[in-house]
This record gives sequence, C-alpha cells and structure tokens, in this order.
Amino acid sequence: MTGFIAVHCGAGQHTEKNYNKYNKLSRQACRAGMQVLKNGGSALEAVKAAVIVLEDDPLTNAGHGSNLTTSGVVEADASIMDGKTLLYGGCGAVQKVKNPIALAHNLCANQTQRLPLGLIPPSLLVGDGAYLHAKTAGLKTISYKELISPKALKQFKKYKKLLDAQCMNDRMDTVGAVCIDDTGHVASGCSSGGLLMKRPGRVGQAALYASGVWADSFDVEQESSVAVCTTGCGEHLVQTQLAKEIGIDLKDCTCPTTQLCNTITEKFLKSRYLSNVQHKLGGALVLHISRTGEGAILWGHTTESMSVGYMKSTDRKAKSMISQLPQDIRPGTSVNIGGTHFYIRK
Amino acid sequence: MTGFIAVHCGAGQHTEKNYNKYNKLSRQACRAGMQVLKNGGSALEAVKAAVIVLEDDPLTNAGHGSNLTTSGVVEADASIMDGKTLLYGGCGAVQKVKNPIALAHNLCANQTQRLPLGLIPPSLLVGDGAYLHAKTAGLKTISYKELISPKALKQFKKYKKLLDAQCMNDRMDTVGAVCIDDTGHVASGCSSGGLLMKRPGRVGQAALYASGVWADSFDVEQESSVAVCTTGCGEHLVQTQLAKEIGIDLKDCTCPTTQLCNTITEKFLKSRYLSNVQHKLGGALVLHISRTGEGAILWGHTTESMSVGYMKSTDRKAKSMISQLPQDIRPGTSVNIGGTHFYIRK
Repeated sequence: MTGFIAVHCGAGQHTEKNYNKYNKLSRQACRAGMQVLKNGGSALEAVKAAVIVLEDDPLTNAGHGSNLTTSGVVEADASIMDGKTLLYGGCGAVQKVKNPIALAHNLCANQTQRLPLGLIPPSLLVGDGAYLHAKTAGLKTISYKELISPKALKQFKKYKKLLDAQCMNDRMDTVGAVCIDDTGHVASGCSSGGLLMKRPGRVGQAALYASGVWADSFDVEQESSVAVCTTGCGEHLVQTQLAKEIGIDLKDCTCPTTQLCNTITEKFLKSRYLSNVQHKLGGALVLHISRTGEGAILWGHTTESMSVGYMKSTDRKAKSMISQLPQDIRPGTSVNIGGTHFYIRK
Repeated sequence: MTGFIAVHCGAGQHTEKNYNKYNKLSRQACRAGMQVLKNGGSALEAVKAAVIVLEDDPLTNAGHGSNLTTSGVVEADASIMDGKTLLYGGCGAVQKVKNPIALAHNLCANQTQRLPLGLIPPSLLVGDGAYLHAKTAGLKTISYKELISPKALKQFKKYKKLLDAQCMNDRMDTVGAVCIDDTGHVASGCSSGGLLMKRPGRVGQAALYASGVWADSFDVEQESSVAVCTTGCGEHLVQTQLAKEIGIDLKDCTCPTTQLCNTITEKFLKSRYLSNVQHKLGGALVLHISRTGEGAILWGHTTESMSVGYMKSTDRKAKSMISQLPQDIRPGTSVNIGGTHFYIRK
C-alpha cells in the first residue's frame, strides 16, 4: 500500500518573501515523515517526525521560535491522535520541552499502559506537570531561552509597547501533519506556540482532543479513513470542535472536497457557537481515504493564506505550496479549498 | 417561569454511612443556587453559587478537600457553559484558587470582552497562569495547605504507601450543577480535584469543553433546551465527549429518559473510542426542557452510586438522594437512569 504524508505550517498571512522558506520547510518535514514510513514506522511515528522538523524551525509558531506569552516565555500546546487505536495525547502550556509533539506522542502511546493501583494514564498534561513528565520520560528538555528565537523576541518587544488597538493576530503558524502508513492506518498531529501575547497558562485547540486533531482508521475495505489537524484561532476551534466535525462529516461523504467546503462553511463560518465573532480565522489539513482506495489530501482555510506540503511513498520529491484566498475575499468570511488526489493501492 | 436547579456530588461508590452527609450537602447547594435565581440572577450565576457550596465542603473531590496529586497538592479542574451565549470557560490543574468554578465563570463571562491589540480572551487557562489570572481578577486565592483536608491527606498517605495493584478509583466525587433561570436559559458547571494520585499537570474532563459541560438554551417556544455535566473517569469522558453527545442527542428526542439511557449505553459503555477499557465508569446530570415546557431532571451512572439533589423555585425544600446501580449489576457494565419531571410554566 502507498504511504502518504502531508503537513502544514499554519493558516494566516504569509508574506510573499517567505513563501520559499515555508515551501522548503514543508518539503523537509514531508521527507522526514516519509523516511519513518519507509523504515516501517507507523503513521503516528511519521506524524511525530514531521512535526518535530516543523517545531525545530524558528519560521513556525511551534516549538523553537514560538510566540511568547505576555510573560515573555514560550508555552507550547501539542496533540496527536492515532486512527488505529483512536487514542489521543496532548500537552498544554508546557515550557522548556524541546518538542511538544514528542510529549503528546509519549502520552498517546502510553494510554493503554497498565499502571499500579489501577491508575489511569493521563491523556492531557499541562504546565509544570507536563514538563516533569517529559523529563522523567527522557524527552529533551531545554532552557527557556533556547526556545526563544530572535524574531519571536523582537515581535514580543514590539507588541509589548503597542497601545493602539490594531489587530495583531497575524501570526498563526501552528503546524500540523496527517499521514497514512502502509498498513492503511492514519494519524494526525498538531503543535503551536499559541496566539502572540497570549496569557500565561492559556491552552488553545492545538492541545485538545477533537479541536486540534482527529484521526479514525476504518478498515479500508469497508469504510473511509480520515485524519484532520486544524490551525487558526484556538478558542474558536475549541468552540466549534472543528477537527472532529470535519472527521465525522467526511467519514461517509461522497465527495470529500465538497464536504470539506460545506463543513467549514456551515460549522465554522456560520456556526451558532461563533455568532458573536466577526472574523472567523481557521484552517484544516485533511487526509481522506475512501473505501475504494482513493486518497485525497485537502486543505481549507478562511485566512489569507495557508502553507502546505505533501508526499507519497512513491514520490521522489515532496511538493509544497502556499494556498491563497482570492484577493477580493476578506479573510474570515469565506473558505478556500485546495487539494490533490492519489491512490493508496500499490 | 419556574426556575430549577440540580446538583450532583459525583458518581462512584458512596459509603452508606455518608448518605446523609451527601444528601444534606446536595440540598444546601440547591438552596444556594435557588437564592441566586430568586434574586434575579442568571442560570450561569446560580450554577456557580451551587458549585461553590460543593467545592467548599471537604466531603467532595472538588475545591477544598480534593484528591491530592502524587506531589501531594490539590490541582483542580473546573468548567462552566452558558446556554444563552453558548460560551464556555474552564481551568485545569490550578493550584491555590479557593473556588475553581469561580475562575471558570470569570473566563466564561469575559469571553466577549474586547481586548486591546485584537487579543482574544482565553477560554481555558491552566497551571500557574490560571492562578495568576484568578489573583488579578480578584478571586480568592489561598495557600496550598488550606485546600488540603485531613481526609484527603490521610488517603494520599495511605495510597502513597500501597504497592499492591488494587483498584483505587473509588473517589470520583466530582461535583456539578445544571440550572434553568426564569428567563428560560440554561447553564451547567463542573468541578473536580481529579483522580486520586493523579500526575501533576493532569487535566480531566471537568476542565474541558464538550467533555465536562454542555449547555444550549433554545428559544423554549421553538425547541428544547438542555444542560449537562459529567462525572467519572476524566480520560474516558474526554474520549467520548459525553456531555456534548448527551446534549446533542437529547435536543430533539421524544423521550429524554430513554434517550439518556441509549446515549450512555451506545456512546459510553459501547463506545468504539473505549474499546480497550474494561470498566467504563461515568455519570451525567441532565436538565432537559421540551418545547412544550415540560422539564426533566435526569441522572445516569454506570458507577455503583451517584449523589444528586434538585429544587424548583416553587419548592420550599430541596430534595436529595443517592441513586444506586442494582446490586447484581457490576459497575462499569450497565447504566442506571433516574429522574423527575416538572413544568417550567407558572
């Protein structure tokens, strides 16, 4: 069976001079994930590997280079879901962990662990406790300073001084990945530094089940499989639970492209849960495998742009692009859908 | 219109010698919520007031007297949802805040606040940041020690010593409340100290949107209103998103009692998300108002027992009881449904 991985570097406003950087990074992350698949790794492991590449690059708002809180530190959110086991792991507002997605992965992978005294393994850890768990689990922990990029520090200082009421939600480069491995199982992952100048302790959709990630591997002969990760304004993605809504809606649809457009329109842009919100900024990266073996990688965003990349196991090179909302459309009012098709059979 | 409030003190195993204490506390919490309604307060404010009473009592696993983490401190989760605005606020793994539900309420009530620089008010705060927010917002903060009850400390010491693999999930006294005010709007709230000997930083369903709380006030002339709060094993309630599932399923059903039984059976006990889980321990307290004005307060639990209380604005006294699974039924395998009906018209 053909493996496939896709990543995104967030939906927001990508300045044109950085297009090449985003595209290059997307392809690099795809290659890292594909290498895992080719070595016999699972979709879950491939997602982790791809997101680690995105976290480590200061270009994105995830891991090193994340937005700083009002206290001037990085507090990261990340989550991952395994379509095979339907298990999820997440971490929120975690400091000093080099790769938050690795911590989410660790929690997800240990969900079925049998603990003494009948204790139940946690699925979501936050703050200091999350840091302690990462350290105990042998994951790489680093100092506060090592996670702060010069760019993030500059932006923090700039906005810390600003007193006027300008809109500053221009940096939403949450990252994510969706993947199918050669056994036909899907997984998705998500990682974010959160909104610029967020309050300490704030947890957004990137840490949360159903809001940031969704993955559900059906028996591919019987039903479709779907993996989703979201990006955008965390609070609004939590209220609409966009990842799960897309996952459920696309499960049995006849045309995933049309359905993705409908779901983002009806359940995000027109959502009754967001009736007080003027600009609904969000995006989703979706992997859909129909029961006939036809695969689709799709992205939808209501933001000005979204940076995506993808790669099949039979491809020699990864592809990447910056998807853009038509120039006459105001961000937050309409959705732009893009994607490509492939077959998972060898 | 008749106001109504109901509370619970958790689904788990309630020892018979404590039945009176739980019943008394439930009635006390109902009276506190009812007082708010009678003073013209909203369902949201009444829920907060009722849950504060439950949190302040060391009998429950919420606020003062909560279970301790493996580090020996209280880390609380709480959330609240307003059916009128469909907004949610939550806090997770928060220390030193006297009433976590007050913090959740503060975040919920400030969701539509306009912040400088276009910043978005957080809906979920955790850890130290949540504590700082509570302090800044003027909510009562106290020392670590003041939240620890003698009973919780004794249990902590006992289990800290235990090395055998006995099941110890016997203290799940998460608390919650559901309410309808005289304008016909509903709200729900949830507060928990989390599992006994949980890992520091662990966040359970009590902090989380859709998992711990759900509230949706429809125009009562048109459609039904529903408010739900859940209790039980946090990780499993997150995976099944039981509060929202019940809320959605009961919205348009013909018989809420039958539907609640079906939803807990199909979407919790038989959930494909919990296929690896042997004992599915959970419960829900539900307020349902049909469009004809018929109200139902319902509870369902798969645990041995559940402590509930309720009060109408026309009642002189609050009622309370311990609902029990039939003795020949093994906890975690079947659901026990109870409830009572009332009319919201004057």
